Amino acid sequence: MNVNGRPYRSIWPVDERSGTVRVIDQRELPHRFVTLDLADPEDYVRAIADMAVRGAGLIGATAAWGMWSAAVAAPESRPAFDAAVSRAAESLIATRPTASNLRWAVDRQRGVLSAAPDVPAARDAARREAQAVTDGDVDMCRSIGRHGLDLLRSIRRAKDDAGRRDEPIRLLTHCNAGWLAFADVGSATAPIYAAHDAGLALHVWVDETRPRLQGAALTAWELGSHGIPHDIIADNAGGHLMQHGLVDLVMTGADRVTSGGDAANKIGTYLKALAARDNGVPFYVAFPSSTFDWSLDDGLSGIPIEERGADEVRRVRGRLRDGSIGDVMICPEDSGARNWAFDVTPRRLISGLITERGVCAADPESIEALFPEFRSSGISNP
Amino acid sequence: MNVNGRPYRSIWPVDERSGTVRVIDQRELPHRFVTLDLADPEDYVRAIADMAVRGAGLIGATAAWGMWSAAVAAPESRPAFDAAVSRAAESLIATRPTASNLRWAVDRQRGVLSAAPDVPAARDAARREAQAVTDGDVDMCRSIGRHGLDLLRSIRRAKDDAGRRDEPIRLLTHCNAGWLAFADVGSATAPIYAAHDAGLALHVWVDETRPRLQGAALTAWELGSHGIPHDIIADNAGGHLMQHGLVDLVMTGADRVTSGGDAANKIGTYLKALAARDNGVPFYVAFPSSTFDWSLDDGLSGIPIEERGADEVRRVRGRLRDGSIGDVMICPEDSGARNWAFDVTPRRLISGLITERGVCAADPESIEALFPEFRSSGISNP
Repeated sequence: MNVNGRPYRSIWPVDERSGTVRVIDQRELPHRFVTLDLADPEDYVRAIADMAVRGAGLIGATAAWGMWSAAVAAPESRPAFDAAVSRAAESLIATRPTASNLRWAVDRQRGVLSAAPDVPAARDAARREAQAVTDGDVDMCRSIGRHGLDLLRSIRRAKDDAGRRDEPIRLLTHCNAGWLAFADVGSATAPIYAAHDAGLALHVWVDETRPRLQGAALTAWELGSHGIPHDIIADNAGGHLMQHGLVDLVMTGADRVTSGGDAANKIGTYLKALAARDNGVPFYVAFPSSTFDWSLDDGLSGIPIEERGADEVRRVRGRLRDGSIGDVMICPEDSGARNWAFDVTPRRLISGLITERGVCAADPESIEALFPEFRSSGISNP
Repeated sequence: MNVNGRPYRSIWPVDERSGTVRVIDQRELPHRFVTLDLADPEDYVRAIADMAVRGAGLIGATAAWGMWSAAVAAPESRPAFDAAVSRAAESLIATRPTASNLRWAVDRQRGVLSAAPDVPAARDAARREAQAVTDGDVDMCRSIGRHGLDLLRSIRRAKDDAGRRDEPIRLLTHCNAGWLAFADVGSATAPIYAAHDAGLALHVWVDETRPRLQGAALTAWELGSHGIPHDIIADNAGGHLMQHGLVDLVMTGADRVTSGGDAANKIGTYLKALAARDNGVPFYVAFPSSTFDWSLDDGLSGIPIEERGADEVRRVRGRLRDGSIGDVMICPEDSGARNWAFDVTPRRLISGLITERGVCAADPESIEALFPEFRSSGISNP
């Protein structure tokens, strides 16, 4: 998508010989647009762990490029090469345990690397695979956008029929499942960008998404850059808006979706799904099918939820009055905090899943009908 | 309650001859414990308007003491005295036009002053009335605490019977309905302090309560100062905690409760009530009966919801690394925000109301049984 009138992806290779890619340092947004070069395998691990890059698709793409970088940096002899890329794979996977795209991308690279006849061929294959993962991510997001656009057109028609022709379609979204979370376009934002480009009037309620404020910092920045009307709200406000008919649909991304249709997404998503159901507002989850975890049916018992550091809650980061980036402590010095990063929205609260293959109900039968190659019971992520 | 091992109220008289009280400057909390002397009538007006004092009960008590201060400062001659206290009453009421306790306390003083036979008697009467308003507030809160303690004891017994003897009672609360919002003890915190003093083991999940962070700043400070175990959480986290059995009950205050049992409270309360119902967690609202609006039955259509400035969402205030108080901008400079301060939790989501007179179900019949003197249909707030 565009930044200052110039098209960008969120990750792109810049040096083939050293295995270097460039990413947008998302910790500096929305205050500064800064890029970061990832040159050796530890840079990739650090970028994911420190959340310079974040979001399901981009984490997957970064891991794929990280495996390429590891292959480039690994010793020439085959056993040492295999040991080095294996270590890199483990380090990458350990960074974000809830991110299924991370393991999926690393596993794709592991398959490609082990199938290669020799080290040079393995490096070439890893380079191609990283590009394929990235391009595939963009293609998937564009398909999600097309299917989501059909849904938004039907909501538009319903509003017109209800005499609300002058109102924009009002979406509410949580966290950032935008192009910054993928290689480009995004998942939950893909239908928004597609609808905006198709001339549908939109207004987006952007949950600020504490503690890390990905909504206020990233989604608002993305939407503003693309010229899409929006307002930031406290995470507390969505229920009130839905009670008063000010939300036509909720659309979020997902970090992991079970074969039964339960969806893990940023902490707080479940609360919005409850409010949507209580007020008859459609609640859709948009994600590429690589987000499915085919080995799990029940999300609440099966999906591990990452707990992060207390200071993400105790401190809030932003732009100081002097223009520098800093933080403020919002609580007593000696008060503790707990910080779970995700929650699970059970399938019963989800109106539909928007994938690159189409929209389906959030139940095992509908999911299997759309993805017949992944029969239920214990088949792990493709 | 205790601060550094010493008992405090949130307001207390320090000089009788000049009509001076001392308050805790809540704008400095939790970072600095600073008191502020209110010596002349304008000091009281400023303290309420600038939110050095806030919260229904404390605003009422401050206004009552402010009327005493005005009586002390007023001229000796009766017509000039009456004119001066009347001007003070108008100034106080104008500070927070929607705070019903403010008008109620000022009206109590107006009645007492006009009934006094002469100026010295009026001053004495105003002194006694200010003390009575304050002590009455504390008594009401203590009664709420006693009734809430019975509830917590029953939860303790149920946990013991379920073999969870080693776990503390885990409460979740939203915003600050603590002793800082009243003269002492608080409403939603009253049962917590009573249970702690009775030796029941507790742990409190403190919703940070964006945008103004009253939970992280005030409730956490109160609980920490009194030695009550607690952790601050993002407002997004409560649903996840309830899904995983980590909350035994939710207890909040209220800003206005209808005769039908709908409760307006800080924005986001409704989302916690939805999560509580979805997970079978009891959800209680604790408040003095002066919070009832007997003229309203349906809260969602009847209670006006204040919208505040966008910068409360766009900026977050706290302690900077150099120790000073400041703020950070969390979003793009050109993104807008909307900021509704309250939402309404419908009676169907409320397990019970805890008042100074006892606990009752949140329905018109149960409320009327507990407060038979306020029959429904159009009787305005006492």
